[in-house]
This record gives sequence, C-alpha cells and structure tokens, in this order.
Amino acid sequence: MSRKIPVLEIFGPTVQGEGIVAGQKTMFVRTGGCDYRCSWCDSAFTWDGSQKPTPMAASEIMMELEEKGGNRFSHVTISGGNPALHAGIADLLELFRDKGIESAVETQGSFWQDWLLAVDDVTISPKPPSSQMNTDWSRLDTFMTRLSERQKGNHSLKIVIFNEEDITYAKQVHNRYPGVPFYLQVGNDDLENPDPAHLRDQLLEKYEWLVERIMEDEQLNHVRVLPQIHALLWGNKQGV
Amino acid sequence: MSRKIPVLEIFGPTVQGEGIVAGQKTMFVRTGGCDYRCSWCDSAFTWDGSQKPTPMAASEIMMELEEKGGNRFSHVTISGGNPALHAGIADLLELFRDKGIESAVETQGSFWQDWLLAVDDVTISPKPPSSQMNTDWSRLDTFMTRLSERQKGNHSLKIVIFNEEDITYAKQVHNRYPGVPFYLQVGNDDLENPDPAHLRDQLLEKYEWLVERIMEDEQLNHVRVLPQIHALLWGNKQGV
Ligand code: SF4
Ligand code: SF4
Repeated sequence: MSRKIPVLEIFGPTVQGEGIVAGQKTMFVRTGGCDYRCSWCDSAFTWDGSQKPTPMAASEIMMELEEKGGNRFSHVTISGGNPALHAGIADLLELFRDKGIESAVETQGSFWQDWLLAVDDVTISPKPPSSQMNTDWSRLDTFMTRLSERQKGNHSLKIVIFNEEDITYAKQVHNRYPGVPFYLQVGNDDLENPDPAHLRDQLLEKYEWLVERIMEDEQLNHVRVLPQIHALLWGNKQGV
Repeated sequence: MSRKIPVLEIFGPTVQGEGIVAGQKTMFVRTGGCDYRCSWCDSAFTWDGSQKPTPMAASEIMMELEEKGGNRFSHVTISGGNPALHAGIADLLELFRDKGIESAVETQGSFWQDWLLAVDDVTISPKPPSSQMNTDWSRLDTFMTRLSERQKGNHSLKIVIFNEEDITYAKQVHNRYPGVPFYLQVGNDDLENPDPAHLRDQLLEKYEWLVERIMEDEQLNHVRVLPQIHALLWGNKQGV
C-alpha cells in the first residue's frame, strides 16, 4: 500500500453526468496528469500546472471519501486526467472490493493497467480529430481486447462530438468495435462561460443538433446520444 | 398474426428520453389503453378518449416503422398507456427478432404477458402515491419474479417523484427488489406549458431538487437520478 496516487479533488456524493453510468449517485476521485493535451479539455487543470495534485495513499483517499460521503455512497468514479497512468489505483480498488463499493473509470485507452480488470464500469473515450490528438489504433485494439476478455464488469465507448469530422471518426470507432455499447456526447466549447443558464441553453441547442444529425444517419443506429447532465445543472463549476 | 394492437402513434427515429435506455436511438410505437388513471399522466391521450387508436396487425405496424424509419433504426420502444394489456405484441416481437431489432417496453407491472420474456429491456414503473393509484404488491411481486428468472434481457425499475411521500414509496420499492437497477425521475406537473424553454428551466430546477434530496439520503445509494431528456429538448410536444 505504498504507491501514492496524485489526487486533485475528492468530492460527492453527486450524480455521474456522462455515459453508461449517467445519473448514478457517486463520489468522485480526480487524479492529476494526462498523456494527452486535448484542445477542448474540460479538466485541463489536471495537467496544465494550474492546480497542484496531492500524492495520497489508497487508505488516505478512502478516509477522505468516507469523511465527505459518510454512509451516503456505494459507488466511486475515478476520473482524470488519465487515471490509467497511476499504478496505485490497484490498492484503492482492493479497498473498494472489501467494502462492497462499485467503481467506474474513464480513460482514453492509451495506457493499460491490469487493475482495469477490477473496475465495474470502464468508459473508453478515444479522442476525435477536433481534440488535435491522434489515436494509436493498435494500442486501442489491445486495450479493447483485454477488456472484452474479462469475466465480469462492463465497458463502453464514449466519443465527444464537436463537428462533422468527429462524426466520421466516431463511425470508424463504432465499426471497429461493433459489439461495444456506444455513446455520443456533444462537446462543450464554452468552458469559460460563468453563467450556467446561458451555457445550458447553448448545450441543449448543440445536443439537439447532434440528436438530429444522428437520427438521420443509417450508419449510427445502435447508438446512444446523451447530454452532459452536470453541465446542464451546474455549468462549468468544478467540484460538483 | 390476427391479433390487432390498438396504436396511437408510430414515430421516430428519436432519442429515448428516460430510464436505462436513455439516449438510445429508437422508434416509438405507442399503444392505446391503460388500466391506471394517474393524476399526472403525461400520455392521458392514450386512454381519455381524446385520441382514437387504430387497430393494427403486427405486420402493418412493422410496415409503418419501416416507412418512417427506413434503415435508420435498429431499436423500437413500445410504450403506452400500458402495452402489457395487448396480447398481439407477441407477434410484433417475433418480427423484431427476425429482423434483429432490439426492443424496450415500459409498463407499471400490473398485468403480465409472456411476451415480456422476449423484450430486451423492460422498465417497470410502479406509481407512487402522488399518482392517486394503489400498488398491488402481490401482482408486482409475481411480475418481478418472472422477469428475474429469464435467461436474457434486462429489467429495471423507474419511479417518478413529485414529493417526499413518493420518495418514501420509492424506498419501499427499492428495498423490496434490491438487486434491480433503480431509476428515479422527476415528475412533470406542468403538462399544459406550451413554452419548451420555460418548461426546461422548471424541469431542471426540480431535477436539481431531486438530485440534492437523493444525495443526502443514506437509504438511496445504489440509485440513478435522470432528467427526462425529451422534455428538456421538446417540452410537452407529442410525437418527438
Ligand atoms: S484525455 Fe481527457 S483529461 Fe486528457 S487532455 Fe484529453 S480531455 Fe483532457
Ligand atoms: S400507468 Fe402510465 S399511461 Fe397509465 S395512467 Fe399512469 S402514467 Fe398514464
């Protein structure tokens, strides 16, 4: 239990805003550090040096979760940054298992960790062209194969969409891993907007665009299109 | 193939707005008739005589689905009213199976049909006190037991919440069927509001109330709280 994890924030309980566990009551542990630099990253504070992570042992994280969440949670989401950079999360997942706590992790699929096999819900979110990042397909293939071979737990794909090129990319991902539950989400390109009501209208307008775009597309049928629930509620506020 | 189904509307593709398949691209078949009369029913036109259902054979429904949806769907939601009043839906599900179309059904769990065993996602939505309806628990028990014994397909519970009494009821349901994925949804008590933007603000305000209420409750941890996506997008409009 000696491998420390760089932690940026621990908060909750709140609702999971995205993907296959959308709406789930959960605590959040946000780790620092990312191997990507997405142009529209909505958690750039995890890697741009603006906020300093605290190195914490799994047991310390567990203590803070219990301090903040009391008996009001049975689910924890580990997000980032890219949480798959940190080997120490294995220790945290062991504590969760002992306590009967369910877990979810989101990662872009660029680094593998064996502890991913112990996560109840893994969301893989490859980044489309608008992010300015390149997908290493052979790495992603290995990642997806390992997840598909495990006995228990679910995994799903989630692509954030800003434009038509991103939709083409999404099709490529969907065709490459056809059996995997597939989520599309509209991107938030107004990260500086301090007014939740205004942001909400913008996001719903874009969501409606994405819904209409997907509805007319014969190549994207087995697909789910979701809004970002937390952004609708709380705008760009951190820690909710 | 002779048992006709009373159909009120067939539309789509659109997004499923609620519950475990929220966000899914789907066609809708809405059947007429309900054994309940919920005070806040948002599809009262299915049973209050204001709209007349058309009796249709499964093959006719399938034709209209294909006419409207073309190749742009692989999922159909059968909703009501209470679709479980109609034996003929068995024929429709057979057509879906032959064509590789997935299905979802929502019902309050007051009537059983063996065809429910062939549905990919069954949402059971028992009605809380605010509806003015009474739950027949022994019927619901039988219903839940039959669903839990099937080999394939998922089922989940969804309770619409208007007030504190409804939350007490929700706990009762959650404790009675603890292993079943459990969704809470805020009720829309402004069904006459013609202004989507205004309704949207109201719904998000109520959703925020429900989220906060559930977050503080130790007895509702393994729970998902979702907004009604279609109401956020399109307000009270029918057929979207
Ligand atoms: S992978 Fe995620 S955390 Fe990393 S830069 Fe991209 S959006 Fe930000
Ligand atoms: S069970 Fe559903 S369709 Fe029937 S009255 Fe209640 S809300 Fe309306």
